[in-house]
Amino acid sequence: MLYLLDLFGVVVFAITGALAAGRKHLDLFGVVVLALVTALGGGTLRDLILGIRPVFWIADPHYIYVASAAALATFCFNRRLPPSSRRLLKTADAAGLAVFTVIGCQRAMTLATPAVIAVLMGVMTGVVGGMIRDILSGEIPLILRKEIYATAAIAGAAVYVIIIRFTGQQAIATVFCIAVILTLRIAAIHWQLSLPVFHAEDDSLE
Amino acid sequence: MLYLLDLFGVVVFAITGALAAGRKHLDLFGVVVLALVTALGGGTLRDLILGIRPVFWIADPHYIYVASAAALATFCFNRRLPPSSRRLLKTADAAGLAVFTVIGCQRAMTLATPAVIAVLMGVMTGVVGGMIRDILSGEIPLILRKEIYATAAIAGAAVYVIIIRFTGQQAIATVFCIAVILTLRIAAIHWQLSLPVFHAEDDSLE
Amino acid sequence: MLYLLDLFGVVVFAITGALAAGRKHLDLFGVVVLALVTALGGGTLRDLILGIRPVFWIADPHYIYVASAAALATFCFNRRLPPSSRRLLKTADAAGLAVFTVIGCQRAMTLATPAVIAVLMGVMTGVVGGMIRDILSGEIPLILRKEIYATAAIAGAAVYVIIIRFTGQQAIATVFCIAVILTLRIAAIHWQLSLPVFHAEDDSLE
Repeated sequence: MLYLLDLFGVVVFAITGALAAGRKHLDLFGVVVLALVTALGGGTLRDLILGIRPVFWIADPHYIYVASAAALATFCFNRRLPPSSRRLLKTADAAGLAVFTVIGCQRAMTLATPAVIAVLMGVMTGVVGGMIRDILSGEIPLILRKEIYATAAIAGAAVYVIIIRFTGQQAIATVFCIAVILTLRIAAIHWQLSLPVFHAEDDSLE
Repeated sequence: MLYLLDLFGVVVFAITGALAAGRKHLDLFGVVVLALVTALGGGTLRDLILGIRPVFWIADPHYIYVASAAALATFCFNRRLPPSSRRLLKTADAAGLAVFTVIGCQRAMTLATPAVIAVLMGVMTGVVGGMIRDILSGEIPLILRKEIYATAAIAGAAVYVIIIRFTGQQAIATVFCIAVILTLRIAAIHWQLSLPVFHAEDDSLE
Repeated sequence: MLYLLDLFGVVVFAITGALAAGRKHLDLFGVVVLALVTALGGGTLRDLILGIRPVFWIADPHYIYVASAAALATFCFNRRLPPSSRRLLKTADAAGLAVFTVIGCQRAMTLATPAVIAVLMGVMTGVVGGMIRDILSGEIPLILRKEIYATAAIAGAAVYVIIIRFTGQQAIATVFCIAVILTLRIAAIHWQLSLPVFHAEDDSLE
């Protein structure tokens, strides 16, 4: 069940990667690379840092097939989609963030890492792919400057880790984590909630 | 023999890294860093993801010496080279791509990874160094937007993996892989072949 | 003792990361991410490449707490600081570079790596965090284009490795390494010393 949700998250993140490539007029190879990086980048860095070998998409290459297929489908059918599908994509992206965060927390907790590390690994799994996508397209990562996004992942990951610690019930922790992230993200999209911005005109290290 | 070709690839990629640093007016340290990253970045990420320890240039520091020497030589002698050497560099770069791709496939296959992973590791070894070089110089990676480059590596890697699977003959696979990549790259340079470009004006995730 | 110096370096690097986020008007999450990446990025890449598991900030999460606290404090109190504290920060940054370089060399030498690798790991620990910070803020890394910075780390790391090789005295090596880096950095800041810049108008690979 979580595996199917995971593949769903891979599809959604791959589509956002392919669309970012389209905005920068990259070629077909660029589209596939940005899709793969967005969908698999967060989990890859998590596995590298936790020392999990082999990395999840080497152990199970279905992730690569699914992400590549989603990229090709976006490349072929993007023009024919109605504008309303855009709004759907934003909600789907929130769901993908939620699933990836759960999986990241879970992978870290099976290694008995401290709670703060489990939260960090959940957030990393959810947001790093999108950050690499933005860097490869020559942008400052979106999530560093707008809306409640990573913050939703932090809240959800904290809820997951706390519930696991006190009850040990994985199913309950998963449901609550996903609910928290979805609620926060949809509220943030709807009311355009943002974190406070930091303005510093310092140039002492230039 | 393959080891000598590998060092040749390191020299060529280090020169392209040093020249990229020169275009951005980086200092001598920047020249060496971009040379090292271009020459060793792809293989490093491959070894990290495959879990090969120690990374190849720690096991054999000659790679570092050779890449640094190529960077310094480019820094010192760049002005004295005739313009014709530029065209030579482009062909040499194709040869470097071919050799790195072979070595990446081979390293993955000794670990008995699935075929798709072996192809991916070959391509990664060939192209990731240039991608990091471009990001460090503040550019969207060139290979995501122009000409048949990574595509040549994909084709060559696929040929390598197929020949190994069916015959087990490493020498034959190596020769054919290099021939395919060189042919495709030289044809792409000559006729300026490109993959189709993806235009999407979507901004739904902004 | 070295552990306290290490945490001091983490604080200083986290502040420079938070200030870079402020210059780009990132939000609170962006401030914390840039602080963490600047403070922990170099050591993380070093541990990944050397194959040290778990990565240092997973083995000891205090690093994360300290860097996050420094980021939040910068966010809250930046405005109230007198301009003179800026000059202090530049010297503190030199001290952080020195400490990180020592620790990087030391970690590599406990694994009995070749001398050139120990120097490289020292420099990597000192400078990579700042490079990732600059890339995430959409800049070409500062240390690739200005002033003696990485060069000071290279000199200090070389001194460290040579003293350890010939005397085995860690305390002496540490003191001399830090002295060399501080002297070179403060001289570079004072007289604005730079490495020669490389100008190449080549576009053969475009």
